[in-house]
Amino acid sequence: MPSMNPEPVGLRARSRRAFLSLGAAWSAALVACRSKAGAPAAAEPRTLGAPVSDYGARSKFETAKRFFQKDTKRPPEEGSSQTPLHDTYGIITPSSLHFERHHSGVPEIDPATHTLTIHGLVERPLVFTVDEIKRLPSVSRIHFVECSGNSGSEFRSSGANDLQRAHGLTSCSEWTGVPLSLLLKKCGVKPEGKWILAEGADPGRHDRSLPMAKAMDDVLVAYGQNGEPIRPEQGYPMRLLVPGWEGNVNVKWLRRVKVLAEPAMTREETSKYTDLMPDGTARQFTFYMEAKSLITRPSAGDTMPGRGFCEITGLAWSGRGSITKVDVTTDGGRTWAPAQLQTPVLPKAHTRFRFAWNWDGGEALIASRATDESGYTQPPISALVEVRGLNSNYHNNGIQLWKIAADGTVTNGNRA
Amino acid sequence: MPSMNPEPVGLRARSRRAFLSLGAAWSAALVACRSKAGAPAAAEPRTLGAPVSDYGARSKFETAKRFFQKDTKRPPEEGSSQTPLHDTYGIITPSSLHFERHHSGVPEIDPATHTLTIHGLVERPLVFTVDEIKRLPSVSRIHFVECSGNSGSEFRSSGANDLQRAHGLTSCSEWTGVPLSLLLKKCGVKPEGKWILAEGADPGRHDRSLPMAKAMDDVLVAYGQNGEPIRPEQGYPMRLLVPGWEGNVNVKWLRRVKVLAEPAMTREETSKYTDLMPDGTARQFTFYMEAKSLITRPSAGDTMPGRGFCEITGLAWSGRGSITKVDVTTDGGRTWAPAQLQTPVLPKAHTRFRFAWNWDGGEALIASRATDESGYTQPPISALVEVRGLNSNYHNNGIQLWKIAADGTVTNGNRA
Repeated sequence: MPSMNPEPVGLRARSRRAFLSLGAAWSAALVACRSKAGAPAAAEPRTLGAPVSDYGARSKFETAKRFFQKDTKRPPEEGSSQTPLHDTYGIITPSSLHFERHHSGVPEIDPATHTLTIHGLVERPLVFTVDEIKRLPSVSRIHFVECSGNSGSEFRSSGANDLQRAHGLTSCSEWTGVPLSLLLKKCGVKPEGKWILAEGADPGRHDRSLPMAKAMDDVLVAYGQNGEPIRPEQGYPMRLLVPGWEGNVNVKWLRRVKVLAEPAMTREETSKYTDLMPDGTARQFTFYMEAKSLITRPSAGDTMPGRGFCEITGLAWSGRGSITKVDVTTDGGRTWAPAQLQTPVLPKAHTRFRFAWNWDGGEALIASRATDESGYTQPPISALVEVRGLNSNYHNNGIQLWKIAADGTVTNGNRA
Repeated sequence: MPSMNPEPVGLRARSRRAFLSLGAAWSAALVACRSKAGAPAAAEPRTLGAPVSDYGARSKFETAKRFFQKDTKRPPEEGSSQTPLHDTYGIITPSSLHFERHHSGVPEIDPATHTLTIHGLVERPLVFTVDEIKRLPSVSRIHFVECSGNSGSEFRSSGANDLQRAHGLTSCSEWTGVPLSLLLKKCGVKPEGKWILAEGADPGRHDRSLPMAKAMDDVLVAYGQNGEPIRPEQGYPMRLLVPGWEGNVNVKWLRRVKVLAEPAMTREETSKYTDLMPDGTARQFTFYMEAKSLITRPSAGDTMPGRGFCEITGLAWSGRGSITKVDVTTDGGRTWAPAQLQTPVLPKAHTRFRFAWNWDGGEALIASRATDESGYTQPPISALVEVRGLNSNYHNNGIQLWKIAADGTVTNGNRA
């Protein structure tokens, strides 16, 4: 094998560009992109770069951020921020961009003094320090958390202006913690203990009731997120992680679990987080986040770089288990074709899908539609409104349309 | 269902602590922990917390960091930093803690001007902008990257003082990018093109040769890491991701791929990154990172909090595919028992394993041993030294022992 150090290239190589032999779609795409960008000069650093560092940060050229509504009557501590799903890859949401939702701000909790109390209808009430929790048998699982208010804007035909504002209240992480069932068993749940009440250490003491069957199934007391300790806004030092169920029952800054015979009927499950139906009654304890999917690219706010090849990609998930199928339409729902699901496809986790498309440059209405392992298929939003009316903004898992205009602009296709 | 807002608890609950009914192991563990920590007061924030933010950060109470050797003759730009594996959970390494290794510092590259050139023995040399790369069909996969020099300290019985310093040059991320095979096919590889040379845009122009068969298999030109753009020290805006092969061929800041008939024989594969054998010859192109595992907790530097229950946990991986088995010993290798593998178990990715153990308070020598889908089992370090001698520090995948003393201190058990 001869020693052959290749000659340096650099700017010179650009003169050798040849696009003629590319497939039609690619060729068009590349030429379109080039005509915008011109021919950029390759970066050629000649001085030494930065040394190693103890805790890294993203490039200064990257500026994706969580969106939050500033002009609101709410105090800034009672708010939410949304994940820029349009700018994320794969299935893991960067912890720094995981959506937020809290009612009384993010408390600063010292893990050396924080404790979790388990009491109520148990044989042995116990108090655990964080160190004690971390020493118990642990488990790691990749799960989404979605706010029940996600996509609420889309019940009405006005809709939101982009993907992040419309649907950014869902994120997916690798969570690590101890099964709640293990803690409950150690405390000895009495036969009459059929519910639990979980309470946070935030100043507003957010609390929700959960049936014992779920508590004993797959719920975690989680202290790890994407390999490191849970972020403060996600419940540091520990939170409840209730796979597949609405975000607000995943109680953050968890300080107390009380075993009850019946649900506690806190304000969070009576005046709030219930779904007001057309007949004036309210659906209560609507825990499951049903099968849902979104095209994340292209989506409202994008401009198509030109006709030709376009990878349609997005996320699908279900609180009932694994996604089994995602269909994509590019003609407003007249025809659907299956998208490719990125492995691993995990239960109650974001699943990335991809769909190869050639945009012909004409108007198009694109959407995705998920089916989960229970056999349930994501419905049109109109089907949800037909049953539920418009009294509640919660639990919209309807199909989201994006409209592509001939000039390449992409807007919210749900608008009338 | 009655409305029943439970009474507030708080410090009072600690008086109800009851450990007597816990299993023996748990009880001992909890009591041991308590006698150290005392009875901490529960945090009870009464004022509003922090508002939502656009890009989050970890808690100020968390301080895990990458380790790097400061007292070295190398300039700080020619260095490495190591992941605190001891402090990570699950299988995803936080991007901020992914190990670093670079020869000429981390270049600051503007993605608007960076390009990737593919040339050499191809029909159509092409230059791609970053935007063009991102518009092509993409794929996401969870893979480890491990430096071939990882664990080099352990070839000698002096060994390193803790897990991070000994073995912290391995990390695992969800990578997103375009298959290199797709780019090569578009360029049209000539029949005589059997190797590629990949070159980085760092000032030192790090470059390595790879056989065409691998380039056409599962190699990615990656631009995404754990959901966001690749971090600067990991190759922003794009890098080669060569699943299962030694870290230094995963060329960062990728600017050029040249198709060659034979390997280029750069300095990185002649004077460096070859393995000098006892007979004076050098093994070259030792690409695969073989099956390996490490107990991350407890590990050297830890102090056991007390006798009783202890979850032994760690990571296993193989460049040949998936991990099929991890065995754990607590008696220095006389007996081994299978650990539990955390799903999903993914090919060429870190796999988390767990093993429930009751420490009796006596001296113990603990270790893990991985087997991969090829049937290969991680050997003792002595078996590697027997064949290879001690001329090279590369490719140590031998079994790591941790020694637990009766006073609970944990040290490097590889020491003679």
